[in-house]
Amino acid sequence: MIDTGIRRGDLIDTDRLSIEEMKELFRRAEFWRNRPKTETPAYPGTYVANLFFEPSTRTRLSFEVAERRLGMEVIRFDEQTSSMVKGESFYDTMRTLAFLGIEVAVVRHAGGGILQEMSDRSPGPVLINAGEGEGGHPTQGLLDLYTLYRHFGELSGLRVAIVGDLRHSRVARSNLWALKTFGARPVLSGPESMRDPELEQLAPYLPLEEAIREADAVMMLRVQLERHRETLFHSAEAYRRVYGLTGERLEMMPPHAVILHPGPVNRGVEIDSDLVEHPRSKIFTQMENGVWIRMAVLERAIQGGV
Amino acid sequence: MIDTGIRRGDLIDTDRLSIEEMKELFRRAEFWRNRPKTETPAYPGTYVANLFFEPSTRTRLSFEVAERRLGMEVIRFDEQTSSMVKGESFYDTMRTLAFLGIEVAVVRHAGGGILQEMSDRSPGPVLINAGEGEGGHPTQGLLDLYTLYRHFGELSGLRVAIVGDLRHSRVARSNLWALKTFGARPVLSGPESMRDPELEQLAPYLPLEEAIREADAVMMLRVQLERHRETLFHSAEAYRRVYGLTGERLEMMPPHAVILHPGPVNRGVEIDSDLVEHPRSKIFTQMENGVWIRMAVLERAIQGGV
Amino acid sequence: MIDTGIRRGDLIDTDRLSIEEMKELFRRAEFWRNRPKTETPAYPGTYVANLFFEPSTRTRLSFEVAERRLGMEVIRFDEQTSSMVKGESFYDTMRTLAFLGIEVAVVRHAGGGILQEMSDRSPGPVLINAGEGEGGHPTQGLLDLYTLYRHFGELSGLRVAIVGDLRHSRVARSNLWALKTFGARPVLSGPESMRDPELEQLAPYLPLEEAIREADAVMMLRVQLERHRETLFHSAEAYRRVYGLTGERLEMMPPHAVILHPGPVNRGVEIDSDLVEHPRSKIFTQMENGVWIRMAVLERAIQGGV
Repeated sequence: MIDTGIRRGDLIDTDRLSIEEMKELFRRAEFWRNRPKTETPAYPGTYVANLFFEPSTRTRLSFEVAERRLGMEVIRFDEQTSSMVKGESFYDTMRTLAFLGIEVAVVRHAGGGILQEMSDRSPGPVLINAGEGEGGHPTQGLLDLYTLYRHFGELSGLRVAIVGDLRHSRVARSNLWALKTFGARPVLSGPESMRDPELEQLAPYLPLEEAIREADAVMMLRVQLERHRETLFHSAEAYRRVYGLTGERLEMMPPHAVILHPGPVNRGVEIDSDLVEHPRSKIFTQMENGVWIRMAVLERAIQGGV
Repeated sequence: MIDTGIRRGDLIDTDRLSIEEMKELFRRAEFWRNRPKTETPAYPGTYVANLFFEPSTRTRLSFEVAERRLGMEVIRFDEQTSSMVKGESFYDTMRTLAFLGIEVAVVRHAGGGILQEMSDRSPGPVLINAGEGEGGHPTQGLLDLYTLYRHFGELSGLRVAIVGDLRHSRVARSNLWALKTFGARPVLSGPESMRDPELEQLAPYLPLEEAIREADAVMMLRVQLERHRETLFHSAEAYRRVYGLTGERLEMMPPHAVILHPGPVNRGVEIDSDLVEHPRSKIFTQMENGVWIRMAVLERAIQGGV
Repeated sequence: MIDTGIRRGDLIDTDRLSIEEMKELFRRAEFWRNRPKTETPAYPGTYVANLFFEPSTRTRLSFEVAERRLGMEVIRFDEQTSSMVKGESFYDTMRTLAFLGIEVAVVRHAGGGILQEMSDRSPGPVLINAGEGEGGHPTQGLLDLYTLYRHFGELSGLRVAIVGDLRHSRVARSNLWALKTFGARPVLSGPESMRDPELEQLAPYLPLEEAIREADAVMMLRVQLERHRETLFHSAEAYRRVYGLTGERLEMMPPHAVILHPGPVNRGVEIDSDLVEHPRSKIFTQMENGVWIRMAVLERAIQGGV
């Protein structure tokens, strides 16, 4: 029951995926998009556990819908402050899940590299990273790229401006790796205090207006108001003025350029409210695409890799 | 995917339902009551989200059973203190649910008219009000009337005494509207301090014994011990003496009159313990009927109105 | 809908099960073990509620997998500090569940004999005890015995050493009763301060080395670090030295003797980390067997007893 060999189905982050693997995920996402909701479930009797050690609404719901549409049996496990968060007992939890017959574990975790460690030690179910601290969020990165891929037809050469709190963004990280793999041309922008030297080894940091002026897509990151309460909370309007995507800044973008945001949106902070549902916004399209991409990722996990 | 037209399937409160609509719901409740539990699900691949921003046991379980019996895919979403409780972000949550493929949202909320606002703005799934603050609780009203309708054969002219904490009761409100629509003759009673001028525009307020003496049905409201802790908690026995349904008061009711209570019951406060399962009590029948009525309401939501 | 007759399907504790009943449960566990995961569900349209008034991970997950594999509809109900924990309102909750169409209730509770009381008053669904305070944990006892039964072929005469915090262990209690019924020869050991006079009426208390030296199986109990924080937390290493199962003590056990532990394991406290997955450890086998035993117990509940 326990696979102790090479873990081909684990999804730890986008830096371990090739172009071919990602394109295959896009193809399967497209496949699932076109299936009727009522067709016979593809994977009955396959058990998946959703282990969310940090709060999450969108990602959790998106995975749950994806799992149900595949016909999987979904086990929720959402103790946010569990004794199982750390090292050894996380390992025992994974082994327990395996012996209960659970084949896939979708894990959101505060981080510290625990998913990589579990992937290496391989105690149980195939692992899917659903967001790990400030580390990575590969299914978000994949759904963002899938959204761009569907819109532009290809990713190579695409200019993507990633704007905002780079230092604390697992989304930026997972996007950057995948964009680089596809030969896209990401650039970074945002407050000086939120720059991240590590990310700047992958893409140049530019002033905001320069970053968006030639972008094919502008990806606004969520301001973690809850993390920056002291310094930022009372200056949400100040943030908007200097780094927010406003109607005025939309005008600076090329006419064909689209807007992305991983959600949830702080309307009036990093993006003006009337841009959220603007014809050039892909924000809700991203949410829809998330279901298809996660179905593809889950299927890859069940099948042990593509 | 998003219906931005007339929202015929929303259920915000009973005041927006006609006699015909309610009778059709009763007919469908009757239909579902008679189906075997193991028959092929009627609505596979239909996703419903239960959003309970306030604690609830009975209503949530009742909806969940109803949803499962229809074969729907049930998504739970029960963050009680979510950042999504208020205005704009509630709207974004609804849109997100729609783009995740969720067609119906069952919402319990602290109130403030958010459900009506959402119904007007129509951002996503069809909405079912599962209890909104002190506003309304339409499925409770419908199941109460359905219980009376099954027992008496009709509702027109029926004398229903609603007794207790009128001011804080969403149950009283939803019942009153529906009873009036059917041409029943509701009366109100309860402590002076709990009277509600708005409700008294719909039905007369009477002294308790007068209210129950000619009633066909007596609906006891739950004393919100948790809300009135200061003044009431230590005087539960005092409440019982003055406003509780006791064996003595049962004697005053006409011999054919029945007892209703929305539950959960405070035995020995608003109703004596041995009356809860009295032959003339419909309290557990109400709970059973709640499943059939909610199936009918969910079906109406899926089909976009009756 | 409400069964008010003899409650043959309730599982309150192992002391009420005969050898024949337990053997039939083992046979059904064996049957379920050999069914493919994708076969047509055996009990569609059968509703079960999991009421966990105390935190639990393993037992809850194990029951949930068992229920799903039987094709049951699973209703979660996990308010840890519910107003329903006590007497009268627990009774009303049970009746409510019955009228909602729920046939089986799996209950974990802090104790006080509430399950026995509910079984006697019989207000609703068939009851399965999923752990009750320091009272009993019959499905754990059954899965432990099933594990030994599969390994040794029989239980009569088997020498089982139960070691650790006897006073607070519901696991020890449920095991002892069942072992005695089968004619096994249990012995007890552990810290003086954790002895339990009641259990010692069923089995002798021995010094640790004497207890394990002739054992066919050694069942290590979990040290409730959270209960003994004051006295024990800083002396986990001291506990290990005096009462832990170490490599050295494994050497003292007969070469054929196996290790059991109900989980979750405190590695390095009551058992050394490298013994958890030792070839002679049955710890993860116990977890797997738990699913099959719980399927058998649930089936017995649905069918109203074996």
